[in-house]
Amino acid sequence: MTKKDIVSNLLRGRPATPRAEAKTFAPANIALCKYWGKRNEELNLPVTSSLSLSLGALGSEVVIAPCEGSDRVELNGQVISSEASFATRLFEFLDLFRPSPETRFNVIARNTIPTAAGFASSASGFAALVTALNELFGWGLDKRALSILARLGSGSASRSVYDGFVEWHAGSREDGMDSYAEPLNARWPEIRMGLLTISAQTKKTGSRPGMKHTVETSPLYAAWPEKAALDLAELKSAIAAQDFERLGRTAESNALAMHATMIAAWPTLLYWLPESVRMMQRIGDLREEGVPVFFTMDAGPNIKLLFLENSEPAIRAAFPDVQIVAPFVN
Amino acid sequence: MTKKDIVSNLLRGRPATPRAEAKTFAPANIALCKYWGKRNEELNLPVTSSLSLSLGALGSEVVIAPCEGSDRVELNGQVISSEASFATRLFEFLDLFRPSPETRFNVIARNTIPTAAGFASSASGFAALVTALNELFGWGLDKRALSILARLGSGSASRSVYDGFVEWHAGSREDGMDSYAEPLNARWPEIRMGLLTISAQTKKTGSRPGMKHTVETSPLYAAWPEKAALDLAELKSAIAAQDFERLGRTAESNALAMHATMIAAWPTLLYWLPESVRMMQRIGDLREEGVPVFFTMDAGPNIKLLFLENSEPAIRAAFPDVQIVAPFVN
Repeated sequence: MTKKDIVSNLLRGRPATPRAEAKTFAPANIALCKYWGKRNEELNLPVTSSLSLSLGALGSEVVIAPCEGSDRVELNGQVISSEASFATRLFEFLDLFRPSPETRFNVIARNTIPTAAGFASSASGFAALVTALNELFGWGLDKRALSILARLGSGSASRSVYDGFVEWHAGSREDGMDSYAEPLNARWPEIRMGLLTISAQTKKTGSRPGMKHTVETSPLYAAWPEKAALDLAELKSAIAAQDFERLGRTAESNALAMHATMIAAWPTLLYWLPESVRMMQRIGDLREEGVPVFFTMDAGPNIKLLFLENSEPAIRAAFPDVQIVAPFVN
Repeated sequence: MTKKDIVSNLLRGRPATPRAEAKTFAPANIALCKYWGKRNEELNLPVTSSLSLSLGALGSEVVIAPCEGSDRVELNGQVISSEASFATRLFEFLDLFRPSPETRFNVIARNTIPTAAGFASSASGFAALVTALNELFGWGLDKRALSILARLGSGSASRSVYDGFVEWHAGSREDGMDSYAEPLNARWPEIRMGLLTISAQTKKTGSRPGMKHTVETSPLYAAWPEKAALDLAELKSAIAAQDFERLGRTAESNALAMHATMIAAWPTLLYWLPESVRMMQRIGDLREEGVPVFFTMDAGPNIKLLFLENSEPAIRAAFPDVQIVAPFVN
């Protein structure tokens, strides 16, 4: 089963003539229960289910149009060389969707979140891209199908087709048709996420090879799937009960356990910078001082704070450079 | 089975009259395959076997003498309050050895290695203490018995009764009489250990409660025993072959996996300081530059480098404050 097979099945009988242009947006998402490890590399099928919170207006905007000659991609105002890995990965993904081998695309992407430093820009990018293709061709696919298509580009992109809290079901089918995201029926307007940019540089090891390396070499990875399953259940119940302490504790513990599996890989995969550790300690101190704040981290050095609206003044005082997101407030 | 039972069995029929004074020294030891997790809290029986390298002249010197009134302990020239946890732990340990309830001891200890910041001073301290008691009373115990007695004070002290590479057998008996250390029959004169003191402050969480907390709360601990068993075999074979690259890689990987189990505990147990992470990155950079240097870390922020004699100039240049130990050179 290849990506192309999945796409062919989903697009069978759908229109193949593009409009002049389509423009879409998809939010970035930050996992509270992480996606870490694949059961199928080709189809980005995960070992475990995961749960995220989408970041509202922070994400990726994509404009796509058919064009002549060759594929072209622009990111944040800069044309990307067709030899850059960003471009080759994108063009290979577009190969799945060309109605004829001659069809070429012009893609203009703009991230409102730092690119490739653990702020989930590839998730929002691929989600915006498949949504744009759906509009460009008028396929009329539902969100479940879009989630599956986005997953073929980047696993966590499956979650970026929705706002709010989103669960990505691991599924068990070999073709991955039961591995898609769904929104939780839950709003929590007081919840805030705070982005602390410790480094906006592109990381040395991307999350894709990092995940593979961890699964293959970390002796502690064996214990991860059970941990993730417990955390997922705990997070869903904390969200249903609007129990912030439980939500925060579980998300932080999940992120730390994921990083622990990486640290135990060989060679070690240490995404933390000295400043990451300093911030983690600062967060612990704040909590001891009575501010209910927790953190999560992805495959990068940056930290995402979790807190409630009424802690905003304390958070701004402690972290003057924090970028605060209110996922349920427009 | 209590500590007292073990001591009574070992000392049955041995002399009970102390000399005027006894003075001994025991080396600190740094584990290359860590002791992390107990199968019996009372007797300090470990879940896994471990392997260490003793630090030659760095360790603890103990002078012990019977005295009148009450127990008294001096550490590095300072009398320690009998209410301090250091003193209460020591006096409780001495309770095991008093020939009559009235016997009191004066203990003068001097560490030639920083105290209680992950430099294994409690290991050398308890090893020196039981060795001193053995001389004070003229028990004539063999090293195996001394290793068992030292273990009752602090698990890793079982290894500090020997120089060089030392293996502590986990054992399986409930009374722990098969849980003692033995030296490997191996000399490696070129090997060096470099101590990088990042903080000499007493740590917030000692290794004893840290270990317990990890076993009880870390979802990744389940994978540790198998990792430790594999590393132990690998280290012994690397030592036999004098394969430094394999020794270093295995020791570093073992330490990182141990820290990973702590990081995944809840609340997290992060002994690393920002400076620890900076040093770890520096070591990785040095290795990329062709210097064969590895590190290990215990339950504290400090780093111990492993390298060979011929890398000394490069190590001194990179870490001007490093304290270099040559375990097999007097």
